[in-house]
Formats: sequence, C-alpha cells, structure tokens
Amino acid sequence: MATGWFERLLGTIAERGRSWIRIPTDLPPLERICALARNLVSEKGEASGAALADAVLELYRSLDEASRDRFLETLATEYAPDPARLAEAAGRYLAEPGAETASALAGAADPPRQELLRRLNMGRGGTATLIEMRETVLARLHEAPSLLPLENDLKHLLMSWFNRGFLELRRIDWHTPAAVLEKLIAYEAVHEITGWDDLRRRLDSDRRCFGFFHPALDDDPLIFVEVALVRGLAGAIGPLLDPVRPSRPGKPADTAIFYSINNCLDGLRGISFGNFLIKQVVEELKAEMPGLRRFATLSPVPGFRRWVETRDGAFEGPLGEALEQIEAEASELDPDMALRLKRLCAEFLTASNEGRGPADPVARFHLRNGARLERINYPANPSPRGIAESWGLMVNYLYDPEKIEAYHEAFVRQGEVAHSPEVAQLLREEAGLGVANLLPFGATWRH
Amino acid sequence: MATGWFERLLGTIAERGRSWIRIPTDLPPLERICALARNLVSEKGEASGAALADAVLELYRSLDEASRDRFLETLATEYAPDPARLAEAAGRYLAEPGAETASALAGAADPPRQELLRRLNMGRGGTATLIEMRETVLARLHEAPSLLPLENDLKHLLMSWFNRGFLELRRIDWHTPAAVLEKLIAYEAVHEITGWDDLRRRLDSDRRCFGFFHPALDDDPLIFVEVALVRGLAGAIGPLLDPVRPSRPGKPADTAIFYSINNCLDGLRGISFGNFLIKQVVEELKAEMPGLRRFATLSPVPGFRRWVETRDGAFEGPLGEALEQIEAEASELDPDMALRLKRLCAEFLTASNEGRGPADPVARFHLRNGARLERINYPANPSPRGIAESWGLMVNYLYDPEKIEAYHEAFVRQGEVAHSPEVAQLLREEAGLGVANLLPFGATWRH
Amino acid sequence: MATGWFERLLGTIAERGRSWIRIPTDLPPLERICALARNLVSEKGEASGAALADAVLELYRSLDEASRDRFLETLATEYAPDPARLAEAAGRYLAEPGAETASALAGAADPPRQELLRRLNMGRGGTATLIEMRETVLARLHEAPSLLPLENDLKHLLMSWFNRGFLELRRIDWHTPAAVLEKLIAYEAVHEITGWDDLRRRLDSDRRCFGFFHPALDDDPLIFVEVALVRGLAGAIGPLLDPVRPSRPGKPADTAIFYSINNCLDGLRGISFGNFLIKQVVEELKAEMPGLRRFATLSPVPGFRRWVETRDGAFEGPLGEALEQIEAEASELDPDMALRLKRLCAEFLTASNEGRGPADPVARFHLRNGARLERINYPANPSPRGIAESWGLMVNYLYDPEKIEAYHEAFVRQGEVAHSPEVAQLLREEAGLGVANLLPFGATWRH
Amino acid sequence: MATGWFERLLGTIAERGRSWIRIPTDLPPLERICALARNLVSEKGEASGAALADAVLELYRSLDEASRDRFLETLATEYAPDPARLAEAAGRYLAEPGAETASALAGAADPPRQELLRRLNMGRGGTATLIEMRETVLARLHEAPSLLPLENDLKHLLMSWFNRGFLELRRIDWHTPAAVLEKLIAYEAVHEITGWDDLRRRLDSDRRCFGFFHPALDDDPLIFVEVALVRGLAGAIGPLLDPVRPSRPGKPADTAIFYSINNCLDGLRGISFGNFLIKQVVEELKAEMPGLRRFATLSPVPGFRRWVETRDGAFEGPLGEALEQIEAEASELDPDMALRLKRLCAEFLTASNEGRGPADPVARFHLRNGARLERINYPANPSPRGIAESWGLMVNYLYDPEKIEAYHEAFVRQGEVAHSPEVAQLLREEAGLGVANLLPFGATWRH
Repeated sequence: MATGWFERLLGTIAERGRSWIRIPTDLPPLERICALARNLVSEKGEASGAALADAVLELYRSLDEASRDRFLETLATEYAPDPARLAEAAGRYLAEPGAETASALAGAADPPRQELLRRLNMGRGGTATLIEMRETVLARLHEAPSLLPLENDLKHLLMSWFNRGFLELRRIDWHTPAAVLEKLIAYEAVHEITGWDDLRRRLDSDRRCFGFFHPALDDDPLIFVEVALVRGLAGAIGPLLDPVRPSRPGKPADTAIFYSINNCLDGLRGISFGNFLIKQVVEELKAEMPGLRRFATLSPVPGFRRWVETRDGAFEGPLGEALEQIEAEASELDPDMALRLKRLCAEFLTASNEGRGPADPVARFHLRNGARLERINYPANPSPRGIAESWGLMVNYLYDPEKIEAYHEAFVRQGEVAHSPEVAQLLREEAGLGVANLLPFGATWRH
Repeated sequence: MATGWFERLLGTIAERGRSWIRIPTDLPPLERICALARNLVSEKGEASGAALADAVLELYRSLDEASRDRFLETLATEYAPDPARLAEAAGRYLAEPGAETASALAGAADPPRQELLRRLNMGRGGTATLIEMRETVLARLHEAPSLLPLENDLKHLLMSWFNRGFLELRRIDWHTPAAVLEKLIAYEAVHEITGWDDLRRRLDSDRRCFGFFHPALDDDPLIFVEVALVRGLAGAIGPLLDPVRPSRPGKPADTAIFYSINNCLDGLRGISFGNFLIKQVVEELKAEMPGLRRFATLSPVPGFRRWVETRDGAFEGPLGEALEQIEAEASELDPDMALRLKRLCAEFLTASNEGRGPADPVARFHLRNGARLERINYPANPSPRGIAESWGLMVNYLYDPEKIEAYHEAFVRQGEVAHSPEVAQLLREEAGLGVANLLPFGATWRH
Repeated sequence: MATGWFERLLGTIAERGRSWIRIPTDLPPLERICALARNLVSEKGEASGAALADAVLELYRSLDEASRDRFLETLATEYAPDPARLAEAAGRYLAEPGAETASALAGAADPPRQELLRRLNMGRGGTATLIEMRETVLARLHEAPSLLPLENDLKHLLMSWFNRGFLELRRIDWHTPAAVLEKLIAYEAVHEITGWDDLRRRLDSDRRCFGFFHPALDDDPLIFVEVALVRGLAGAIGPLLDPVRPSRPGKPADTAIFYSINNCLDGLRGISFGNFLIKQVVEELKAEMPGLRRFATLSPVPGFRRWVETRDGAFEGPLGEALEQIEAEASELDPDMALRLKRLCAEFLTASNEGRGPADPVARFHLRNGARLERINYPANPSPRGIAESWGLMVNYLYDPEKIEAYHEAFVRQGEVAHSPEVAQLLREEAGLGVANLLPFGATWRH
Repeated sequence: MATGWFERLLGTIAERGRSWIRIPTDLPPLERICALARNLVSEKGEASGAALADAVLELYRSLDEASRDRFLETLATEYAPDPARLAEAAGRYLAEPGAETASALAGAADPPRQELLRRLNMGRGGTATLIEMRETVLARLHEAPSLLPLENDLKHLLMSWFNRGFLELRRIDWHTPAAVLEKLIAYEAVHEITGWDDLRRRLDSDRRCFGFFHPALDDDPLIFVEVALVRGLAGAIGPLLDPVRPSRPGKPADTAIFYSINNCLDGLRGISFGNFLIKQVVEELKAEMPGLRRFATLSPVPGFRRWVETRDGAFEGPLGEALEQIEAEASELDPDMALRLKRLCAEFLTASNEGRGPADPVARFHLRNGARLERINYPANPSPRGIAESWGLMVNYLYDPEKIEAYHEAFVRQGEVAHSPEVAQLLREEAGLGVANLLPFGATWRH
C-alpha cells in the first residue's frame, strides 16, 4: 500500500516535531492539504472537525490541477482499511460464514476514506465540494483507473445522502429566486432555454416546473422537469416552445406533457432521481388539477438514427432516399414515407433484444420506470438536433399510475415493452405489409 | 444462513404463484411485512420504491411486539451479503491486499440490509421510524445479541445521515412552534421543565436556547442547549431556574452559562452532536452579543458520589460524618467541610487515571471536547438529585475558543485535565495540608 | 380653541428660545410629550418623522395615569382643523352645495389630529400603541366626554387601516408559534381554555382554528374562531370540550361546528371582523374537505334569561317552578318541560320586534350576518354560566353559502328571522297548543 | 346633486322590481357596475361585501375606456355626503366653533365615496386596482377637473394606507423572486437596466438594493434604491454601471453611494417614501457594515441646463461656446472650462431664491430631506441624457445622520442650502474672480 511520496511527506512533517499538530502554513499546498486531511480523520477531527474540514475544503478549491490530481490519487490509494484487521475479519468470515461474521467483515472493510469524506462534509460547502470532486474523478477515471476506490466511496456516500427521503420537491415558478432560475437556463440540455423571456414563458400559468432539491444545496436543483398543460396528447415540440402562444383555450387542460427532464449535477451521475420525480409530480398535478386525466412525455429518440445506420443497406430503397432528401432540403416526408418511418421506429422501440429491451436510452429510462410507449409522432421536432437524431420524429411515453408496477415488472423481467393499441397497429401493419419489401434495409436486421 | 421459518414463508408465498408479486393482503402481518421488505430490496423497489416503503413502514408501526421482534430478527439474520461473492472478494483480498482489492471487498461486504434500510428511508416518516427501530434494537440487544448486525447497519447509516453538514442550528424561543417547544418539556432531563410557564421563563430575553434539527425530522430537535446570560460565572443552579427573577441588572451580561444540554432521541445514541452544538452556539452568541466574554457550563458531577463510595473508609472521619448529617437533615456543610469537599472533587475530576481521564461522564464529555475545569461550586444544587449525586456540588467547565484544540489534544493524548488556577490552588492545598489526615478515606484509594 | 394650560406650556417652552426645536430632555414628561407631538405634526415631522414618533410613543407608554389622561385630553381638544379655513369652507358649501364644495369642506375638516395619529403610526409599535390608546379612551369616554373627537379620529383611522383587504387569514394549529397560541388562552372568553393541554386538544386533527391577523401586529390575532369537525349537528358543548374524546369515528366529518368566536383587542371594538371571518373560514374548510356539507355554530343565548325575567309572571306556573328547581338542584328538566323551554326560546329568537329583530346580541350578530336559526338544543351547556344565561340551552345557527345574502336582506329590511322547519314546528306547537296555558307567563308579554 | 343619467339608470333598475337586489347580469356593463357599487356601499355590503367588491373590481378592469371614464365621473360626482346632514353640521360649526363641532363636521363631511373605496379594497386585488384607478384619474384630471373629489379621496386613503408604519423594508438581491426583480428592470428610470445580466451585476456582492413593500402588494416594490459600496466618494456614474468591474480591491468599502432611487407606481404619486427609505437604508447598512463611514448620493442635476438656458446671453462667451462645442463633438470640456461649469452649478444649487431653495427637483428632494450638497463632479455622466440635462455633470449629496435634522430645519425655514467646504470654495472663487467676466451670461441673471 506504500506509495512512496506520501510516506516521505509524513516523514518530513514528523521531523518538524510538534508542528505536526498544527500544520505549518508555509508547507506547499499539496503537503499541507494531505496533512490536514490526516488530522481530520484522526482523533483531532473530533475536537475541531468543522474547522479542519473548512481548511481542507478551502485549500482543495484553490489547488492547481496537478496538485488536485495528486491529492485525489492520495485519497484513492491511502485511507484503505487497516490491513491486519481486515485480513483477520476476511479469514474469520471464510472460516465461518454467517450474518455476524459478514457484519464484522463489513465493519472492518469500511474504509477510513469514507470517514474522511464524511468529515469533509461537515465543513462549509462540504456537500457541494464533494459533488464537484466526484465530477472530477469521473472525468479522470478512464485515464487514472487507480481512482476507482475513491469513486466507489464517493458514489456510495452520495447515493446514501441523496436518498429520496431527504429530497424536497419544490415547484419552480416566476416567484422562485433568480439564483435558482438561472440554474434552469444553465442546465436545460434537451430544449435550450434562450434567455429570461423564454424561461418566463416556460413558467407561465399553463406550464409547470418541479425540481428535487437537497437541504445542503439550497439553490441548486438536482433535477427538474418541465410540464405543459394541454388538451390532448401533444405530438410536436414546436407549439410547446413557441414564444407566441395562443391565449388559453376555453376548455381546461386534460393532459400534462412532460417535455423536458434534466439532471443538473454531473457529480451525481448514476444516482437516480428521475423516476421518483416523474411519479411525484404526477401526484402533485393530480391533486392540484383533478381535471387532468393523462400524464405523458414528449420525448426524443436519440438512438434511432444510430440504430438505423448500423444496419446493412440503410439508406437504400425509397425511405432511405426520402430521408436523405429531407435532410438535404430541410423538407418534410410525405405521408406515406412518414408512416414507414414511424413503423420502423415502432419496431426499434419495442425490440426485446433478448430481454435487454430497446437500445434507446430515453426509452429504456421511461420503460424501466413503468411507462408505456403510447404514440410515435411525425413531424415533431424539425430542429437540427431533432433531424440529426431521429429525422424529426418524437415519441410519447404514457404514465398510468395504475399500471406502472405491472409494466415495470414485465420490462425488467422479460424485456417486454408495453405499448398502446396505436403502436401495436403500426407493428402489425409493418409485419402484414411485408416490411422487408417496403424498407431499404434487408431482413438481416429483423429480430 | 438459512433460518428456517423465513424460507418456509417464502415457500408458502411462492405456492400462491404470481401473487408473490403483489403481496396478498390476507397474509398475517409478519409474513406480509417480510414479503414486502423482500420486494422493496428487489428490483421491484426501483419502480415503486416509495409506495413499497410506505407499506412496510405503516405495517411495521402496527405490528404487535412479538411480530416486531421476529421482523427485527429477520432483518438482522437475513439480508447478509451474497456469500459466494463475499467469499471470493475476501479470498482475493487475502491473496493480494491493496487499495483496490480492499475497495472491492468493501463493496462485496456492503449488506443488502443497508440497501433495504436506505430504501425504507424513502417512505413517509422513514427516517423517524428507522430511529425508533434503532431505539428498540438497542433496548433488546442485551437479551437478543443476534440483532447486532442490524444495530451495526442502523448506526452506520444514521451516523452518515446525521452528519454535521446536514444539521441545522435553530434558535428556539417563544416564537417557535408549540410542536417543537413541547419536545423541550418532554426531553429536558437535567433540570426538569415543570410546564409551559417554566418553559417560557427559560426562553425569556436573558436566556437563549438552541438546537440541532435535521431536515427529515422537522419538529424534533436532536439535541438542545439552554443558556443563561449573566454577569460573572454562575455558581448555583437555583437562581437560574427561579420562577421569580430579579429584573435585569443595569449592566449587560458578560457571561453565557450553558446550564443544560439534552440529547432527545434514544435511537441516535452514540452519535455525537453535543461537541458541535456547544461550539457553534458560542459562535452565534459572540456574533449577537459582542459584550460576552466568557462561555462556560454549570454542570453536575454525576459520578462523584459513586467514586467516593467505592473507597475504603468512606464516610468515616469528619467529612464523612458531615456529609451523612447534611443528607439526613437537609442542611448545608459548614465552610470548612465545604472546602474539603471541593478539594476532594478537584482531585476526582483531575485524575488522569493512567491517561484515561476522570471517571465522571459529564467531565469526560466536556474535557474531550476541549473545555477546562474552571471552578467547583458549593452549595450549588440542593435538589434531591443534586444531593444524591454530589452532595449539592456543581462544576463550571470553561470553553475558551482559543484553547479548545490544545486542551483537547492534551486530554486525548495524555489524559491531562486542563484546569484553572483556582482549581490548581484547591489541589495544592489538598496536597500541602496532608489531605490524608483530613479525609475519612485512607491512602489506599490515592493514586 | 384656547384651553389654557397648553398655551401656557407653549409659552414656557418658547421662552427657552431655540431649545423649542430640540425638546429639552429635562422637561416634565407631560410638557415634553406635548412638545414632541407638536413637532411631529409640524414640518419637522417630515425630516425626522420616524424618530420623533418613536420618542412620543416611548414616552407615552411610560406616562403615569394622570399625565396620560392630560395628554389624551390635549389630543382631543387641540389639533382641531384651522378654524378660519374650516369656517370659510363651511360657508362656501352652504352657499353652493355640491360634490366639489363638499370635497373641499371634507378636506378642510380633516383634523390635524388625524395627521398626528398617522405620523405616530410610523414609529416602532405605533399601531399597537394606538389600539391601546383607543382602549383607554373608550374606557374613559363616559366620564370624560370631551375625549369624543379623539375617539372619532382613532376609530376612523383604525377602521380604515384594519380594512378586510389588509387582513390575513391564518390557520392556527400546534405548529403556530407559542407567542400566538398564548393569546388564544388569554382571549378565549366564550369557553375558557384551561391551559396548554386543553389548547392542544382544541387544535387537534378533528378541530380547526383560524384567525385574522394584521401585518403590523404580527403575533396578535384580531379575532379567532374555533371549529369542531363532527358528524351531524352538534347539540351540546360538553362533548366538544371533553378532555377525553373518543377516537375519531370511522366515518369522516360532514359538519363544521363554529363553537367559539372571540374578538381579541378591546381597542378595535366596533370594528367588525367576525362576519368576514366566518365566511372565509367556510370557504377554506370547503376547499380542504369537500366532504363537509354543513356549517353551523353552537352558540349561547346570553339574552334569554334576562328577557324572561323582565316578563310579568315569570317563574310562576310549572315551567317557572321547574327552572327554579333545576337551578337549585343542579339537575335537568324533564322532557316535557325541556320542550316548553325550547318553544319559549324559539319565540324569543324569532321575534321581529317591529323590524328590529330579537334582543339577543349573539342572535343579532349571526342573523344580520346571513345565518338562519337552525335548532334549539337542550340540555346543551350545564356550566354555571350556561345555566345563568339560558338554563343550559344552546342554539345552532346555520350558514348556507347559497342563502346568506337573501337571509341577510330579509333580516335587515324587515327584521325577518330565517329559521328551519324544525324551529317553525316549535313555533306552531306553541301557538297551537295554547302556550299561554302551558307557560307561567301571562299573555301580557306576548307580542 | 342630480346628474340625470344615473337617476334614470336607477329608475330603469327599479322597474325591474326585486331584480334590483341581485343585479341582472344582462345589464350593460356601465349600468351594472354602477348598480353593484351602490349595493356595495349600502347595507348589503355588510353581508356580502367581499363578493360584491370582487364583482365591481372585475367588471371595472374589463370596462372599455369610455365606460370607465363615465364610471369615474359617477364616483366623483355621486357619493357626496348627505347634504342635509352636512349643511346642519356646517351651520352648527359656524355657530359654535370648537373641537367637538369640528369633529362632528368632519364626520358629516366624510364622503360615502371614501366608504365605497374602502369597501372596494376588500376585494381581491383591491388595493392594486385602486392605485391604478388613481393613476387613471391623475392622467385625466387636467381635462376632466370634475374628477377632483375622487382624486382627493383616493389620495387621502392611499396616503393613510401606505403609512410608513405599514411598509416593509426588504433587501433585494439575486435570491429575490424573479417576479419582483423584473419590476426593477421595468421601473428603473434613472440609469436604465439593460437586461438580466445588468441587473445581476447591480445585485452583486459590492452592491445593495432595498425597497419598500406593502403587504397588500406583495411583488410590487413601491420604491427602491440602488447602492454601490466603494472606497471614497464616487464622482462618475460610468464605473458604477460598467459591465466589467475590477475585482474588489483589497481594502473594504468605506462609502455607500446611492446612485439610483425610483418610485414605481404612478398611482402613488405625491405620497412620499424616498425620505424614509434613504434613512432606513443608511441604518441597515451601518448595522451590516460598521466600516462604512460615508453615505452619499451620486445624483443628476436635471434642472441645470434649463436654468442656464433661461438666462439672457447664455451660450455667449467662452463657456457657452465650449458647451456647444462638446455637445456637437461629443467631447469633453478642458479643465478650465470644467471649473467654470462647476462654479456655475454651485451657484445654481445653492440659490436661496427668497427662501424657496434651488429650482432643481432632485436637489430640493435631498436638501429638504436633510442632506447637504457635498461635491460637484465633472465629467460624471457622458450619456446623451447626462449631456442634455447638465452637460455631463453630476452631484453628491451627503447624508450625515447627525446633522439631518439641523440641515432640514435650515432649509425648510430659511431656504439655506447646506454645503461642504469644497462647494463653498467654488462659490468663493466664483465671487472673488469676478465670475461675471468669465461667464458668457451677463449680470442680469445674478441674484
């Protein structure tokens, strides 16, 4: 476990005698932060933990990149559990496996690194800094795989701390502090918010926005979802984002369209909030507006084009030609070709793939979450990105509170994709009409 | 790992076929909660985690004692990590000890029980129920030692969740909601609050009260401290609690006396807040009232009498007689005897005990926390409890922000008890005057 | 307008020369406050109005009773409008009555006293002090009728400032600050709250409490109403106040009983909030619990006994004897006599009195407010006060949002008392059965 | 008082019999709103005041311009006090002038119009609508002088309701709801806010912004002030508004510069808040930052050019030529000419004008408010507006809490303009150097 330079550092510091206790301020930053961290995790951390944590955090934020990387390396390679104690607990478990020896082994395996991270969290801005630290670690993990133990511990702690039970759902509207609202502009990645005027429209009386917040990160939403209240299932993104909206129709909305959902903090990657958020927002909206009878997304299909392109013979035959044409001309498919495109997408999104489900990440998220594939819309998103991903096609996933559990089960266990009769009809037509003939792509890609 | 009855239960449920997925509502509560918990920790927990957690929590709260104990037993003995995976990780660590194998072993040793508890926390009132669960487990641990793995995991999680960084310091006063204030009355264990009138006096303008709160337990303080703003070091508890206080003197207070500090939730036993609380309250008070120049406790000495009683020859000689007399007559020591008692107490509280420090728990808390023993007061607390614990004597521990770290170090490392010149004088007198002659207790108990 | 002593005071002050501007601090309090008030209402008030107002308010609160009365006298007799300007405006209006001369006259008649009171309101605690000032003035008005102009102006301003549009309806429950809750205990005058435990029961989950608050009087409710959620029309106060209540029945409440409504501030006497409060609380409760179908009071009949006693022959005959007996024995009427008592009360409460309506103040309040007399209950309130006022009988007034306006109209215009079929039946029986024979009171008192 | 058409309307309605009580919904809007208003002010207003007020307000907001003007006309000409009662009170006062007859006359002169306006205030959005109503009335008053009685009453009520004692000072920063912040952008009239980025800079950590709010107008500031924290007296607006500011200097700010103060609601014209606001903000800033030692404005001199232009011979001579040149070339004065311009401005701003003070409205506001003229700065504001008003010159007024009252007195009583030694020096130089020779303007305009 000896990594050399850190031991030498300890030696250097020890030579200075008692100054070990109060870290000399003339140490180079890297030596200084390593010494402070050691103190923090030691018994000294008990008496002046918050002050020590403040010092480490402040210093960490000011490190240059190279020192920061060395410090992360130190965190990842030092702070392992006591080898003797761990070896003994491992041996005892192997000799006598059972609940108690397992529990003792877990205790011995709990790394001091986690305790250090927990104590760092006591300092001012601790939680935010640990999230940023994980963002850095994740970005460097590929080229610095030795950071893995640190990533494991950061993820473990953040997952525990950002437990659903500690999150607060807040409605976001025009009465929300600007310090929160500017985060929406910054984090919206699905359908860019072009500025404060656009934001204001998205928070208008026929819109809703909700986010999860954590008490330790007051102004920073972890995730937020934008909802449009409409009549009928919205099939295109344009009217929802249009700066000039018709004044509200006489009839009240019956459908809530979740048209954008964004995770905000890269350092919380892999820690899932979206599933809880959608379901809780459905409950909130039902309570506020009993007239709402349908809850659905209007979602992109970011994996569609890639899937098509990997097929043999893609872009041969009439649909292929049509797709190339509309892209070149920025025009639209004619109805016949549009139908073919929708059928193809229906097939893509309902593919079981031997129980693994469709390859589209957005589809996987919603299906795993208990939604069903409700409708495939064309034309729906004529933006360059929409064309690039799926030739302008978008999809509705429907959340039916009564059926979420059953759909989820079927998807997780058998890779079965729940879908509406309308989608089933698209699939039948495709099969019945001999899709192979209609499509440019040979039978090779059929499952 | 097979414990028999749970496996049989699983068999029973499996026979009912698909009903396994949706727990039949006619199952006996114990079988039902076990099945729900299994579901919660399984992949089903992903889709409907919050709903399942709600169901388990609600059912748990309604269990009779016997069923609850069986369920706790199940939690403690089931939900161990996967034996094969853990054995493999243990073997690999033993073969090649290092940061990465240790991290992998920690991952394999992380018990599903913790994941179950984390998912339970997602339900309504989850955190509060887990704290109550730990209270129950702690109460039963002595006679049911097999609950230890559950206790380990509960403590581990609660310690992580109740990290200082997630606690909120709130001032408590007469503008605080009654739902919080009634907790003060219920939890005050040092100097009983006799009712709302008494409480109101303790929140008056020459008093302060602060508590730590956790966002998931809104109305429940975790710990609170009561402070009196006075001139000079308060040496007796009576005037501080007196229902009829003189109107405030002309001169402003220069001293803050921490006269009562109470942990509120038994289920958080062993998770330390008091050290942080005192230090943060010192900062708050300094900011509010720059005129405050001294921060000290007025503390009981609950271990004093016990210590005296374990000595040979206790209660022989003049002091012993005097103590028995005042107890019988509810009278007071004369000055000479009072001085002897104070000297004895000074000895008790400054004993290094081979680096372990004095046996008094209150003293250990404050000394470990970086305070110094400032003054020994007699008479200070003539209540029956005060007499029973320490013949009415009380002690001031002083918090000097500048010296907290040094005092803490010296205490933790060498068991050195920081004390004031006044206490040093008591100790010198004792030695110089030949205490052995004055005291009823023979030299046998002197260190 | 010369009142003598004030002019002399002005002279005294003027002699001191420039010190007139900055009031000498060694003046007697009465002279000092009068001088400060003069300054406040002068142009000086513009530059340092808030500071001057603070000074006047602080001094006012510290005045002894005699000085305070002199100061109030000064306020009432000085600070009249400019006589020349007012006389001119009066003359012009008499010469040419019309909208514009009336408006000009109103401007000229607006007394500087009101401006002084408005400027006093700018100081710390100004509004609260003006309310207390009016309380004092009202208490002294009978023996000091010259205070009337001050009372007129105070009432005029407070009525304007405590406009419904500036009041905030707040729910009061166990999460309300103790500083507000203690006011409920202090102000509850209908059914005394015996302490914090009683209060807590009255704020339990099957109870509601609402109050009107004014932003300038944060902790002080102006008026509050206590509501019990029950099934069916509650006919007795005992079960509502019982410390030991049965756990809530299986069926949800369908009726909200307003069983106590209290004005809190004597200084706001004659400024009506109760009518608005009841109606707004009805709206709140309907929104929270759509299952509520009836909103009614359970009210005392404080004027009943007095009305009976003023009749000739009261307490002769069987009912009279029975009433005397139950009072002496603290027993209950038998059913026959109870029916007679209820009939008598029905007659009392429905009496038109030549369009003036019944003499009972509680009845007048609710009837004028648009309620109808719904039911007469016996036995309903066996407390000494209940017996003393109405031999233990209580009454329900029903608020039917659909009919409030019509009932109010009929009552205000013709003195018609809206009542239920059940009350109508009582009235018919009385007439049909020859009540004169049954009752102890001769025909003389029948209308 | 008969105005004809309203009486005919009443007749029409009366013919419809009982429908008079519940206003028929098919009436033309103008007749309908007049009838509703009559009801509101009648006894009916008691029972269903809030509902009636809602109806009037909603209808008022939807009226077309012509109907709205007729309705305002009706409000101004009807709703005068009862002529008989007023005449009698006027007569009695003339016969016997005194505090009590004056008070009685004030009561009789209080117009039902005010009561109507007070009752309108009970409806949803009442206060905001009354403010808008006054804005309309003020705009039309010139061509419709008969609206004066309505304006008198609106102003009287709003002045009373927007009493300083009811206003709340709030700090405005980036945590303030966007709904408030957008008002700053809309209302800033002194130095335009160019968008959200500019706004954010103005709320940065070296800036402060405070506003007065009224509880009935939650999101609408009545007035707000923008403050820059700087070192030394800021002499030019450019650096304060510059999008790119140097990072904060090492030394903390010692001066607070009030560089923009804006009234927000035209309907509150003539109701003064600015004087209170500045003084209270000075107190807030002193409490937050004890290091601040100077509080001053950086103000325009909007009346300077106009004053110069009205003089004979303006724009002859060297300064006149220089001013014309810099305006044509958008260049700057050379130091010598700059000094002449500052001297001229010093003279303008210190002119007593026979006790009336200088003609500049900004100067009058601050001088009346107790500030002193501290410094005249050139070049200070090179914007087109700055050039147009004062050739780019700006002024500091200093607020010295110790001297506010004395300065105010001297200004109000004698028109004396308090000014700094630096300004005095400018004045002396001007006199000493024979300004008449230096200046383009002949002696005619010298006082």
